[in-house]
Amino acid sequence: ITDCSMSLLPAVCFVWQLSMIILFGVFVRYNEESDTHWVDYRKGNNITSDIENDFYFRYPSFQDVHVMIFVGFGFLMTFLKRYSFGAVGFNFLIAAFGIQWALLMQGWFHSLDYTDGKIKIGVENLINADFCVAGCLIAYGAVLGKVSPVQLLVMTLFGITLFAVEEYIILNVLHAKDAGGSMVIHTFGAYYGLSISWVLYRPNLDKSKHLNGSVYHSDVFAMIGTLFLWMFWPSFNSAIADHGDGQHRAAINTYLALASTVLTTVAISSLFEKTGKLDMVHIQNSTLAGGVAVGTAAEFMLSPYGSLIVGFFCGIISTMGYIHFSPFLEEKLKIQDTCGIHNLHAMPGVIGGIVGAIAATAATNTVYGDLGLENTFDFTGPFAKRVPTIQGGYQAAGLCVALCFAIGGGIFVGLVLKLPIWGDPADENCFDDEIYWEVRQFLLTHVSTGIKH
Amino acid sequence: ITDCSMSLLPAVCFVWQLSMIILFGVFVRYNEESDTHWVDYRKGNNITSDIENDFYFRYPSFQDVHVMIFVGFGFLMTFLKRYSFGAVGFNFLIAAFGIQWALLMQGWFHSLDYTDGKIKIGVENLINADFCVAGCLIAYGAVLGKVSPVQLLVMTLFGITLFAVEEYIILNVLHAKDAGGSMVIHTFGAYYGLSISWVLYRPNLDKSKHLNGSVYHSDVFAMIGTLFLWMFWPSFNSAIADHGDGQHRAAINTYLALASTVLTTVAISSLFEKTGKLDMVHIQNSTLAGGVAVGTAAEFMLSPYGSLIVGFFCGIISTMGYIHFSPFLEEKLKIQDTCGIHNLHAMPGVIGGIVGAIAATAATNTVYGDLGLENTFDFTGPFAKRVPTIQGGYQAAGLCVALCFAIGGGIFVGLVLKLPIWGDPADENCFDDEIYWEVRQFLLTHVSTGIKH
Amino acid sequence: ITDCSMSLLPAVCFVWQLSMIILFGVFVRYNEESDTHWVDYRKGNNITSDIENDFYFRYPSFQDVHVMIFVGFGFLMTFLKRYSFGAVGFNFLIAAFGIQWALLMQGWFHSLDYTDGKIKIGVENLINADFCVAGCLIAYGAVLGKVSPVQLLVMTLFGITLFAVEEYIILNVLHAKDAGGSMVIHTFGAYYGLSISWVLYRPNLDKSKHLNGSVYHSDVFAMIGTLFLWMFWPSFNSAIADHGDGQHRAAINTYLALASTVLTTVAISSLFEKTGKLDMVHIQNSTLAGGVAVGTAAEFMLSPYGSLIVGFFCGIISTMGYIHFSPFLEEKLKIQDTCGIHNLHAMPGVIGGIVGAIAATAATNTVYGDLGLENTFDFTGPFAKRVPTIQGGYQAAGLCVALCFAIGGGIFVGLVLKLPIWGDPADENCFDDEIYWEVRQFLLTHVSTGIKH
Repeated sequence: ITDCSMSLLPAVCFVWQLSMIILFGVFVRYNEESDTHWVDYRKGNNITSDIENDFYFRYPSFQDVHVMIFVGFGFLMTFLKRYSFGAVGFNFLIAAFGIQWALLMQGWFHSLDYTDGKIKIGVENLINADFCVAGCLIAYGAVLGKVSPVQLLVMTLFGITLFAVEEYIILNVLHAKDAGGSMVIHTFGAYYGLSISWVLYRPNLDKSKHLNGSVYHSDVFAMIGTLFLWMFWPSFNSAIADHGDGQHRAAINTYLALASTVLTTVAISSLFEKTGKLDMVHIQNSTLAGGVAVGTAAEFMLSPYGSLIVGFFCGIISTMGYIHFSPFLEEKLKIQDTCGIHNLHAMPGVIGGIVGAIAATAATNTVYGDLGLENTFDFTGPFAKRVPTIQGGYQAAGLCVALCFAIGGGIFVGLVLKLPIWGDPADENCFDDEIYWEVRQFLLTHVSTGIKH
Repeated sequence: ITDCSMSLLPAVCFVWQLSMIILFGVFVRYNEESDTHWVDYRKGNNITSDIENDFYFRYPSFQDVHVMIFVGFGFLMTFLKRYSFGAVGFNFLIAAFGIQWALLMQGWFHSLDYTDGKIKIGVENLINADFCVAGCLIAYGAVLGKVSPVQLLVMTLFGITLFAVEEYIILNVLHAKDAGGSMVIHTFGAYYGLSISWVLYRPNLDKSKHLNGSVYHSDVFAMIGTLFLWMFWPSFNSAIADHGDGQHRAAINTYLALASTVLTTVAISSLFEKTGKLDMVHIQNSTLAGGVAVGTAAEFMLSPYGSLIVGFFCGIISTMGYIHFSPFLEEKLKIQDTCGIHNLHAMPGVIGGIVGAIAATAATNTVYGDLGLENTFDFTGPFAKRVPTIQGGYQAAGLCVALCFAIGGGIFVGLVLKLPIWGDPADENCFDDEIYWEVRQFLLTHVSTGIKH
Repeated sequence: ITDCSMSLLPAVCFVWQLSMIILFGVFVRYNEESDTHWVDYRKGNNITSDIENDFYFRYPSFQDVHVMIFVGFGFLMTFLKRYSFGAVGFNFLIAAFGIQWALLMQGWFHSLDYTDGKIKIGVENLINADFCVAGCLIAYGAVLGKVSPVQLLVMTLFGITLFAVEEYIILNVLHAKDAGGSMVIHTFGAYYGLSISWVLYRPNLDKSKHLNGSVYHSDVFAMIGTLFLWMFWPSFNSAIADHGDGQHRAAINTYLALASTVLTTVAISSLFEKTGKLDMVHIQNSTLAGGVAVGTAAEFMLSPYGSLIVGFFCGIISTMGYIHFSPFLEEKLKIQDTCGIHNLHAMPGVIGGIVGAIAATAATNTVYGDLGLENTFDFTGPFAKRVPTIQGGYQAAGLCVALCFAIGGGIFVGLVLKLPIWGDPADENCFDDEIYWEVRQFLLTHVSTGIKH
């Protein structure tokens, strides 16, 4: 690592943050629910109580999602024995940058007020910014320990940009539904990260093999991440769902899918180890697959047993992925996937997209009710004539869009990151905090202090 | 551990999860607030805004309770130096199974729609399922480190079943109130676990004595569990309380009782150690006793100082329990209670039931108001003529029911678990993750990586 | 440490807790929203739904604030290699005492019902009590590892008392606004702690220098604290803001300020280390400075880019503080500041007060709307004629009041704590848990258990 590449980090942070300030100054304002004119707006729209401000519908879910982004993703990646600072610290850095850039990118596409050319933000924008960042944090999982913080920032800059465009195409142009983002977030994020990792393939990564693993306490730290992701996933999938039954149903479906996943993950983990033991890698990751896969259909009338079925199969597929598919991916396809995001996000994400397409196709007026069907799929305005079977096709198309943007974008960004200017670690220094962090002392040794008891 | 017993775990997980899917398919549907017909229901019932969907009254509390179940209970039990995987991992497993089984069992008793024979679920059912599981997780505390995961699953299957029945008797037949579950959850869960532990008594547990203790960092991990339990306990006790003042008051009472408990726990802990030092075991556990004991009466007009008094005594009793009663329990009564649930849940739970009975008996129209009294105790329908003094008697009866189910059920389940087919650890392998988990490396040693600074 | 001083802790805990019970018995009751008479109150005031109970406006924020107080502050201070029990345990103790005393002190000033002389409490009081305690926990950061638990309790007793008075003067007499407490909480708490630390200066603290630092895993524990503070800060700053747009805007401003701070913290941390590496001390602390500094103005129309600017500069100033100012403070001013609260709370708090004064001065009817301006600054009742420019002056006056109370009070309390009766640790025993805690075993060593694989 040269001095030059290390001085890149402060420069990038400063310049990008300054750009954010300028762009926010030009473009971003409060929306009618977070502006002091809310009191006038309330009166003008016959809103009887402040409690009907969108803040109260979504703020608790927002905070849960926020925890998933910063503690969930951050701690999930602390499992490496000597890369916990990088896991939680760089996750923090890129998420903090990403949410700002996402507010702008998503704002231009979704929240632009054409009367004054300003982006008007409220709590739903904050949630969407967190969602957008989630895609990039998933991608970080593939390259964990093998890239520099500047590379991560570049990856995030492009990732958010690509995300905002594919999201616009999927949700607005195709009018597909994706409440929990199986397609928009997970499929996109995972294949984006895997494509980058493929381009950045390191044939001699073995040199740091001794650090590419966990130690007892780092596995416990990682469980903090796992559990906060698992517990708050119902909030994730319901955060931007429709008020009322939409949010309610999305939470129930997610709760059930995740519960089911835990049991099949444990079953497969124990079944495929010679001695019948469990592997923390599976418990930390595959237990979450049901939440990913129920994302698109979370708001639909998937029914409780439908959610359980989705979770059931995802637990199996994801754990089998860790056992059989990850080694294949590394050896044959030359994709080094540190956290196994292919098993946790890519496959379950694609399954989620397919489940969503099927569930949409199968939707009927009998099950949903006339108004319910219209509300759930937003068959209004230009889409008033769309019917469930057609919707199913558009859902499937949405999945393809996510895949194209992810793989195409990932290869492009991977090539950018291959430029020899970013200060990435040498093969023998991967998975090691000491390159980017001041590490004072590794071990807690007992120092006699001469206290008289 | 034979191969046979280890292959039991995958089999149980698969078969039980499949059964859940089938039973959910036959029985479980969304209720009117989580179904797409909500929009029709709203109109039919003159509900002015989506914000009056029960989701918005209870979802924030639900998520807090969910954290208590998975992070709270899970991390509280990580205190053992070499059983953190088992603590947090098996807690995860049995809770994920338990919530599904609880939705069914409680559903049949409480949420069955007799018009179509379906259980209709909403957010309140999710909370109740978490509550039901809490009872089994408490029981896990008594046998922590001494049973196999399959035994835990069996314990949970029976525990949830017993819970649903005793809960139905206490809440519906006796019409006792128990917002925070001092009787229904804590008394039941604790004596259920202690009875099982009594049946499974291991005379030679000394062989793994060297692992039955904490290490510096595992005590810090356990504090994560303690604090999330402590902080979110107001949500636990108010989660299913009445809308409006009921939830509000339950939160206040619990907040105060817990604050008071902390001070007396510290006092007793310091007082009874020869050198005046504090013991982390007490801080991790006894500080929570006030939350347990204020559970039944949380919704009542206990008044702020009443809550402080409850917390005051429970801190004392619980800490004294750890110092004096736990050794007695083990040596004389042959009950090995790994986490000391007798001190944290059993005694405070019984106190909570008694406090509830007294508070109900003492309720007056002057303090509660006519409508307030009727609302708080649900003196409506078949119970319209009940008066506080009678209610007090039924509260006491409820406590007895909880105790009977717990001890009777616990002994029966203990005998089932004694069958030599479950793969439980040998005496010398108790409290050791290495039997059930792949453990890669215990210590973080400093490996020189040759980085040039 | 003499026997006498160690027996002080139980005595103080008992006597103070008993006093709380008596004072609560005399003074504290439920308010109209948490009392069973709410049902009558609702009817009398034409409140259409239980959802308009203040509980539903503020409870989710309350729980987030509660997490910040107990997990946030507690774990942030676990960074020391051998003082994690003290960090999280004593934080727990003083917060649990402090919230009770704060309910009384703040109650007398703010929630006294003059018709019956009782303090009437609801969820907003619980939040304010947590806020009040935050001031004392900030102060704890300055003296971490150098004082006894009894000294901390004394510090909290006086701190809460001083807080309640300065808060009354600033918010009620001067009618300054301070939603997130930049002045009332952070400036006060920080200078209070620094003044105490100055009086308690230990010239020979070098003797425990080997313990005044972190170890790898303790830094990861501290990140739990950092992240929960960072994530829930939007709830902190919006918890007691006005219903509707007030809470909504405060959350947005805080979210943005904090995001901005992360990038400049990383930039400065990397820039000033010789090798360009990052320092966990900065990431753990300075990333939070934006939340502190945006506190006073959080509810104002600061605009999104205004929040980013505040965060931008605070990240720089706070990190520079750790690098340059902390050594100066210790060597020249003889202030030993264990956690660097001068950089995290004092400077950003003062900046927050100034930003608030400027933002108030600059407020116009055009930006706020007539009603909006009146609502935001509460220009009603005796303050109906106040205008923004005057308000700005009163905001500045508020900052001075906070500083005076903090420094004056801190010096006085410091002198009290100098009395040789409190059992504080000798210079060579600072930063060491073994004086006040039973520590069983420091290291997790691999003990062969003879399991046959």
